Amino acid sequence: MSNNTVHPTAIISANACLGRNVAVGPFSVIEDNVVIGDNSVVGSHCHLGIATPLATTNTLTIGADSLIRSHSVFYCGSVFGAKLTTGHRVTVRENTEAGDNLQIGTLGDIQGHCRMGDHVRCHSNVFIAHGSVVGNFVWLFPYVALTNDPTPPSETISGITICDFAAIAAASTVLPGLTVGKDALVGANTLVRQDVPDGMICVGNPGKLIGRTDRINLKNTNTPAYPWRRHFHRGYPADIVARWKDEFPT
Amino acid sequence: MSNNTVHPTAIISANACLGRNVAVGPFSVIEDNVVIGDNSVVGSHCHLGIATPLATTNTLTIGADSLIRSHSVFYCGSVFGAKLTTGHRVTVRENTEAGDNLQIGTLGDIQGHCRMGDHVRCHSNVFIAHGSVVGNFVWLFPYVALTNDPTPPSETISGITICDFAAIAAASTVLPGLTVGKDALVGANTLVRQDVPDGMICVGNPGKLIGRTDRINLKNTNTPAYPWRRHFHRGYPADIVARWKDEFPT
Amino acid sequence: MSNNTVHPTAIISANACLGRNVAVGPFSVIEDNVVIGDNSVVGSHCHLGIATPLATTNTLTIGADSLIRSHSVFYCGSVFGAKLTTGHRVTVRENTEAGDNLQIGTLGDIQGHCRMGDHVRCHSNVFIAHGSVVGNFVWLFPYVALTNDPTPPSETISGITICDFAAIAAASTVLPGLTVGKDALVGANTLVRQDVPDGMICVGNPGKLIGRTDRINLKNTNTPAYPWRRHFHRGYPADIVARWKDEFPT
Repeated sequence: MSNNTVHPTAIISANACLGRNVAVGPFSVIEDNVVIGDNSVVGSHCHLGIATPLATTNTLTIGADSLIRSHSVFYCGSVFGAKLTTGHRVTVRENTEAGDNLQIGTLGDIQGHCRMGDHVRCHSNVFIAHGSVVGNFVWLFPYVALTNDPTPPSETISGITICDFAAIAAASTVLPGLTVGKDALVGANTLVRQDVPDGMICVGNPGKLIGRTDRINLKNTNTPAYPWRRHFHRGYPADIVARWKDEFPT
Repeated sequence: MSNNTVHPTAIISANACLGRNVAVGPFSVIEDNVVIGDNSVVGSHCHLGIATPLATTNTLTIGADSLIRSHSVFYCGSVFGAKLTTGHRVTVRENTEAGDNLQIGTLGDIQGHCRMGDHVRCHSNVFIAHGSVVGNFVWLFPYVALTNDPTPPSETISGITICDFAAIAAASTVLPGLTVGKDALVGANTLVRQDVPDGMICVGNPGKLIGRTDRINLKNTNTPAYPWRRHFHRGYPADIVARWKDEFPT
Repeated sequence: MSNNTVHPTAIISANACLGRNVAVGPFSVIEDNVVIGDNSVVGSHCHLGIATPLATTNTLTIGADSLIRSHSVFYCGSVFGAKLTTGHRVTVRENTEAGDNLQIGTLGDIQGHCRMGDHVRCHSNVFIAHGSVVGNFVWLFPYVALTNDPTPPSETISGITICDFAAIAAASTVLPGLTVGKDALVGANTLVRQDVPDGMICVGNPGKLIGRTDRINLKNTNTPAYPWRRHFHRGYPADIVARWKDEFPT
């Protein structure tokens, strides 16, 4: 362990395991059994590795090259791949398993017991209930809520599945147990009450399927906006972008 | 006062009154005239007892056996019963009075001047406006907003009343001055624009009364899901659960 | 610099410039090139002046007589007029320019690259996307989302314009590129999908224009509720209130 940029006010357990070149900001607390990969940054006022009897393991593992912004809270029992990036004041409960390059925006609230693929991007203030399954390359926009209890309150947990490349726009709520298909688009402030098939658009309250996403063009170029990987490549690895360019030649 | 687990970095006013066996996490601040009952835990980075001229008393009272999670903020002028449990980053302004066993989820924002009964459970990210009255055994789910101004902005405060055992699902907004009746259910992403009578369901935008809750069955057992105390007992005191079992014999 | 109320645990860069009579609470961090005007208060656990390569300047300027409540985060590159007041846990990214007397409620999330006029009041938990333009005397209520991407995700940023004196009620979402006119009113939980002309009401999902605001009266007095400056004057400067009284004589 050679991390020369831990702020002197930060409190790091002797049983935490920080990689090389890890920075920790002022007034942050890192508890026992937290493992943070090389070249990661933890902002100020964070609290990582909170223990809970609900956690199936007593460790919290965060991959290399990660950035956890200030005032964030992570419990034990979760595992994140490389390049986790969070906004400020993120809360992640126990037993979540996520791939590489997960982004969780400011105020994100991940309730635990979730599975998330690679390259998932949650914008600010997303709520993901216990038991949700989120695929690869999914986008969730501000105030999206993934719920889990069909008859609240009850002991039934009926998690939601969001498939690869789906995008759910701001302020939408998905009801328990539903599936939002691959390449699907949910419009803003929608109440999703039925499964959304692959490549379909769901909008409104109650949410209605109004057609395929290929009817939507980009404003500037008048070329198809979906699947969004046709044109939106910012921040994805070069090999993946190359594959997308092959899939959708211009 | 014998609290042997106050973290050395926590700042506790000499005029605060902590009961026996109270733990306070790192970097928390407890101001004058805060009273915390026995066997309570205050997480890291909290700030309790913020003074304001709007508070009718200069004290903040938190009952025994409470758990206040990290980064939470409480003002003076409020009184909470025993077994208050909060998530992270809760904000509670002045002059709120709550009974026993209140749960306020992560990011909850209680604006003050509210009355809340016993055993109220607010999930994550609930907004409760100044002047709201919440009964006993009420459930509020994520992103629920209880508003108070019928002609915003104005000087009129028209508080909402939520009656015992009512449940309001995720992302719903209740308009000012309305009453959600006993045992009522508000569906997700509903805009409540009229009173919801006891035991009725309100869903949609605009919210419509679509019938009695007895039409909803539990998924697994095909028995009635409401009133939810027929089947959901987790975390409630044994004597109360026994009463519910008498009320709804199987 | 003579600020005798910086808490000893606060960390203030030698390259920050605090005015006279500035108070800073415990465990707050103020970075390089932060300028705070006279007679301002920064609460506990804040982090001000976070650097980012996205900022067009390396300074953060906060006007005199400001109050930044606890756990708030401000990036470099933004400028605020006098009398900025925030709730708790506010996040403001880079390159925002705001006038005097801005209020940002608890949990507010200003994404940066925004322009805001004078006397703007954001209630709790408002989301303002990158590129938004907010006029003078605007009101945004809890869970309002100003979005910016018409085909999410894409590289198109199509900011929203909110004109002077407009009020957007709780839990409403405005779609990208739209304009909400002067003196307009957006009802609660509305999805704004079209421009709202001056003085009009938009409600519902999808939002519909249902008439002029002059059809709404105050509950108590049966006099017009809008434009709200006819009757609501709390906290505005005396000269401005005098002008409003001339505009709407009783």
